[in-house]
Amino acid sequence: MRVLGIDPGLTRCGWGVVDGRPGARPTAIGVGVIRTLPELDLELRLLELHTAVTALLREHRPDVVAVERVFTQNNKGTGHATAQAAGVAALAAAQADRPVAWHTPSEVKAAISGNGRADKEQVTLMVTRVLGLAEAPKPADAADALALAVCHVWRGPAQQRLRSAAIAGGIGAPVVQRTLPRWQGVAAR
Amino acid sequence: MRVLGIDPGLTRCGWGVVDGRPGARPTAIGVGVIRTLPELDLELRLLELHTAVTALLREHRPDVVAVERVFTQNNKGTGHATAQAAGVAALAAAQADRPVAWHTPSEVKAAISGNGRADKEQVTLMVTRVLGLAEAPKPADAADALALAVCHVWRGPAQQRLRSAAIAGGIGAPVVQRTLPRWQGVAAR
Repeated sequence: MRVLGIDPGLTRCGWGVVDGRPGARPTAIGVGVIRTLPELDLELRLLELHTAVTALLREHRPDVVAVERVFTQNNKGTGHATAQAAGVAALAAAQADRPVAWHTPSEVKAAISGNGRADKEQVTLMVTRVLGLAEAPKPADAADALALAVCHVWRGPAQQRLRSAAIAGGIGAPVVQRTLPRWQGVAAR
Repeated sequence: MRVLGIDPGLTRCGWGVVDGRPGARPTAIGVGVIRTLPELDLELRLLELHTAVTALLREHRPDVVAVERVFTQNNKGTGHATAQAAGVAALAAAQADRPVAWHTPSEVKAAISGNGRADKEQVTLMVTRVLGLAEAPKPADAADALALAVCHVWRGPAQQRLRSAAIAGGIGAPVVQRTLPRWQGVAAR
């Protein structure tokens, strides 16, 4: 399974690609950061981010895109932009017909370090070790994206089983999932 | 000036198209609501919304897209999804090469009713009156989107002058605005 991890952000959006399967040592394929200029209009920053994520999807062809689930109440100042960045990354995945898995920061920290409250340095250290990297990925956003991808490689299948059970139980039946939007428009007069 | 107003949301996203200029009575061209099914995966809902907004941009060819600026701390439960919906709508505008203007709910209420704290019913009543509609647009999201478009028709030019002055002062020089994303990617090993 190949996973593209995305640590969403507009100023710095971390990404990391990992190959692996549960119970085995994962392999890092690529890592980096997408940056957009704060002076640009918001919609142009979102466009740049979307273009870059689409290019990564084409280059690496991941099976799944794992995106950090952000809780806006925890970071009021930047939560809005972060949520928009996450939405645009998820949209790019849907357009490339790749499923999106969402993981919370504490899930990722627990998966990579055994501690849901690990700090940034601990996460970077464990990512470097688990993936056998010669040096630590920088900045922290890049390390976080790799951690997210590793988290999904290890935990995703269990989530997927729960999800399949939910679908079998009638929630979000796949047949319905690809229908066109149902939106109503009427002339105003 | 033709404005497409977007009241962002995933379950119901209001849209309204208005023609007009400052100091004149605006004309409503179209109004409606984009709905996506809550049972769908988030990324598929964002994809449906993006497809619908892109279709509206093609059909109505607005000069500007006015989007409600959401403050996530005011609605913790749904703020995240609303911010993502707003981001995807802004992205669609950027992809169609249309500028995006952001207005707060209180700005819109003040512009349409003279009262920044007007309730939903007052906004709907004033939208119906100002646009000379035979009946009130429903649901409230559709009326809000029309109010947003009217707000921009009346207030946009003043905002634009401030913005042009800022650009002339060296902030966000247009030459820089269309460059490709600067993102760094390195092989992990």
